Amino acid sequence: MKFCSNCRNTVDLRIPDGDTLPRYICVTCDIIFYENPKMIVGCIPEWEDKILLCRRAIEPRIGLWTLPAGFMENKETLEQAAARETLEEANARVEIDDLYAVYSLPHISQVYVLFRATLLDLDFKPGIESLDVVLFEEKDIPWEEMAFRVIHDPLKQYFEERKKGNLGFHMGVIERSNHT
Amino acid sequence: MKFCSNCRNTVDLRIPDGDTLPRYICVTCDIIFYENPKMIVGCIPEWEDKILLCRRAIEPRIGLWTLPAGFMENKETLEQAAARETLEEANARVEIDDLYAVYSLPHISQVYVLFRATLLDLDFKPGIESLDVVLFEEKDIPWEEMAFRVIHDPLKQYFEERKKGNLGFHMGVIERSNHT
Repeated sequence: MKFCSNCRNTVDLRIPDGDTLPRYICVTCDIIFYENPKMIVGCIPEWEDKILLCRRAIEPRIGLWTLPAGFMENKETLEQAAARETLEEANARVEIDDLYAVYSLPHISQVYVLFRATLLDLDFKPGIESLDVVLFEEKDIPWEEMAFRVIHDPLKQYFEERKKGNLGFHMGVIERSNHT
Repeated sequence: MKFCSNCRNTVDLRIPDGDTLPRYICVTCDIIFYENPKMIVGCIPEWEDKILLCRRAIEPRIGLWTLPAGFMENKETLEQAAARETLEEANARVEIDDLYAVYSLPHISQVYVLFRATLLDLDFKPGIESLDVVLFEEKDIPWEEMAFRVIHDPLKQYFEERKKGNLGFHMGVIERSNHT
């Protein structure tokens, strides 16, 4: 950030009075520009014993598999964000069920929020950000071709728990890695 | 937003190719400026059967009571954010325990995240954003003077559940009101 988005004058990077962290502050209009973590919200769409995965058509991790998930937008709820992303990436309609996992990714200032969800029909197809959308049985899931660790890890846990019949809720932290 | 914070030229408000919502886009350098919901993270600090509340020294809702909570910062985890806010607002050290509630507030594009927490000592005092910090028994909690519905509602639920001995986890949505 170099210039004020309100008056186009320059900004300083300094700690405002009563604050503890440096912020961009306009030298003319004194507006403080805060930067905060973003939420990425998605779901595990279930159909009988299968789940729906999308193969990414965009960077990062183009060609690899992921759950439908994306940046939460202003003016929506977490559940609406998860359902919207599933519609956009897989043209799939879901009913959002329980929260399954919340992961902090501090090195990229993101928080991932994953719900369980029920597919409402089998009329799905790739959206603009997906190359392919496939219902997988557990044995066919391409574990070595998952796009992100924050998708791989909770999904592994999900199948382990499902075998035992006790799907829980999970908090986690994923630190910097080559495969977040 | 009127000007590009990178090159100070003007921005357009339009839907980028492949997107579905209008964004501010620089007419010169084509940077897209996304605006996304912010997370407010806090905790219910417990000491025996009491909980710690802060009386707000700042607007909005100056003079009313709240749990220690505030905007999550870049580069931290949810748990770190909850502990930091408790230190800043109440000079209190806590161990962060289970997640207790997650509320979407779509009308103000916020998501509240509240943990349970254990106070580690009784050496607390008001931080710069608090007029007062008090350990309350349930019977003494100033329910009519709570600053926000998103604090009042989960806290009511917390005490009801605690009586029954089954503290759970709660998702909720709080729509526009005079008392969010």
